[in-house]
Amino acid sequence: MIAGIPPNLEYRRGRLRILDQTRLPWEEVRVEARDAGAVAEAIARLAVRGAPAIGIAAGYGLCVALAGLLARDPDVGLDAARAALADARGRLAASRPTAVNLPAALARLERAEAVFCESAREATASDLLDRLEAEAAALHRDERQVCEDIAVAGLALLPEAATLVTHCNAGPLATGGIGTALGVILRGHEQGRRFTVYAGETRPLLQGARLTAWELGRAGVPVRLMPDGAGPGLILAGKVDAVIVGADRVAANGDTANKLGTLPLALAAARAGTPFYVAAPWSSFDPAAAGGGDIPIEERDAAEVTHLAGRETAAPGTAAYNPAFDVTPGDLVTAFLTERGALRPPYAFAADGGCDPD
Amino acid sequence: MIAGIPPNLEYRRGRLRILDQTRLPWEEVRVEARDAGAVAEAIARLAVRGAPAIGIAAGYGLCVALAGLLARDPDVGLDAARAALADARGRLAASRPTAVNLPAALARLERAEAVFCESAREATASDLLDRLEAEAAALHRDERQVCEDIAVAGLALLPEAATLVTHCNAGPLATGGIGTALGVILRGHEQGRRFTVYAGETRPLLQGARLTAWELGRAGVPVRLMPDGAGPGLILAGKVDAVIVGADRVAANGDTANKLGTLPLALAAARAGTPFYVAAPWSSFDPAAAGGGDIPIEERDAAEVTHLAGRETAAPGTAAYNPAFDVTPGDLVTAFLTERGALRPPYAFAADGGCDPD
Repeated sequence: MIAGIPPNLEYRRGRLRILDQTRLPWEEVRVEARDAGAVAEAIARLAVRGAPAIGIAAGYGLCVALAGLLARDPDVGLDAARAALADARGRLAASRPTAVNLPAALARLERAEAVFCESAREATASDLLDRLEAEAAALHRDERQVCEDIAVAGLALLPEAATLVTHCNAGPLATGGIGTALGVILRGHEQGRRFTVYAGETRPLLQGARLTAWELGRAGVPVRLMPDGAGPGLILAGKVDAVIVGADRVAANGDTANKLGTLPLALAAARAGTPFYVAAPWSSFDPAAAGGGDIPIEERDAAEVTHLAGRETAAPGTAAYNPAFDVTPGDLVTAFLTERGALRPPYAFAADGGCDPD
Repeated sequence: MIAGIPPNLEYRRGRLRILDQTRLPWEEVRVEARDAGAVAEAIARLAVRGAPAIGIAAGYGLCVALAGLLARDPDVGLDAARAALADARGRLAASRPTAVNLPAALARLERAEAVFCESAREATASDLLDRLEAEAAALHRDERQVCEDIAVAGLALLPEAATLVTHCNAGPLATGGIGTALGVILRGHEQGRRFTVYAGETRPLLQGARLTAWELGRAGVPVRLMPDGAGPGLILAGKVDAVIVGADRVAANGDTANKLGTLPLALAAARAGTPFYVAAPWSSFDPAAAGGGDIPIEERDAAEVTHLAGRETAAPGTAAYNPAFDVTPGDLVTAFLTERGALRPPYAFAADGGCDPD
């Protein structure tokens, strides 16, 4: 935990309390999800967002679904319970398409469920809930540790004093712990490193302005907010020591889907010779995607672009193009910062973790 | 003129009516400037913006200043009139630093004034006003013709059907005529070319959303608005036939200052092999600036970034970095589209116009 930054997800039997990130920084509002549909809706409307965080939320979403079923029918059979879980997995999987952590988390709990039901044939639905809650909590704990390990990998590469550029939000709110890209910065700041951060505001939904600047401000890290177009010029002017961002999905060749606006920073960093780091847990790597073309890119509602704070920014009827992510070619990534260390090109991530850290 | 798009600047003796671009597209409000300070203020707060347009406004601003003096004192002497004009030039020159058209326009009227006073020694201040009004109108007329010539140069390079990306606003509102980058598109559309335009919204002040989408929509050109971060991904995906933008100042080596967010498009276009065109009148070229480092870049108020439509987008007290322009290295520009034709690298613009068009 980072002092001053509240938890994004709190699970208690059958209830998932979600800090509504769409209301930050103006107010700290929590919504309580009591069924899988409510968790899926919170993910879809970005009340909880960030690749690791939506994986964790999906894991708890399955627990919420089963707990709800048990509350309505304490004697529900195991088959009916598993059918309800399959249904909940479908809803949660459909909530957002790009981050691979979401299906990975659902698969992890599905495996735990299958192994448990195979080995404990006398088990009740309530026993299964205990098992899934333990697995969801373990997933959450694992992601927390992963953030710490990523911070170690990142801090080994960064100088004592550095001007850094980041984009969108890859901090505590986006993960289960201290964050990925921001975790490096926040732990470094705690250790006395002198980091200054330029954060892109991240249109259309302003996660950089609303969340990253807020998190860094609360932790006391000097931060300047900038329009998304400003990063490349800052980098080409030689004023940036490193770019550090998160990832929503990394393909086998290192192509990286991350929030729209990441690619321009990578292009500028490549021209300037500035290190471009992607901090991401192994759970964001998808060796089943050979390259960026295999990563589904979510296209969101035009109104996110044509409106801001409830006001139209363009003439009525203006059409919009609103992809949530862009794909940075793997050759532009200096290194991936993972819980397995820093990974450098050439990238060839395999399902067996065949790409060794250096 | 383009049907449906109202004039941005209308001068009548002593009064400059300015279509307030900060209120578009929500309402068409005109402000009437009756002294140089009011014109300078309209330029500074972007009521009139766009490199050619602020040059034209500055020319009329000198007329407004002298007309105001004559209204207060019809018998004012020529020396006092010229002192007032020097004062007005100072105010207007200080209104915005980056576009070279502004000092160029002031210098053009200053030359006209000097030549006139030299050759017509019996002239009155009222005669001088006639001369300056004629010169300001000629400047306006010249810039109108320049837009037409730029459109010819651009259309010679673009295919019959094309998907184009533009940024900020280089249309009728930004110039004295049909626009530079948008002039190419608007004239092409009139001639039956099948152009589709992706327009960056242009944070922080949303000139792309508010002005470009509005102008193209009024002219019937298919347009999709996008967050500024979206252009590079679209270009790398091979979906764009050309990028076409305006310029605020071009240095001798082709380095180009244009609205923040232009550079990322140029970086992506270079990687993708997509043509990147800068449409700019010769008045935007400044051979006195050897390279981009010699172009003063305006840094604007942090509140433009931390607020939108009057609402804070970041936690109170958040610092911001808000340069109005970025500099695209000349080697990333495929060609400049000017009234002298298309200019291709290597660039070495000289004061005598030594860089010949192809």
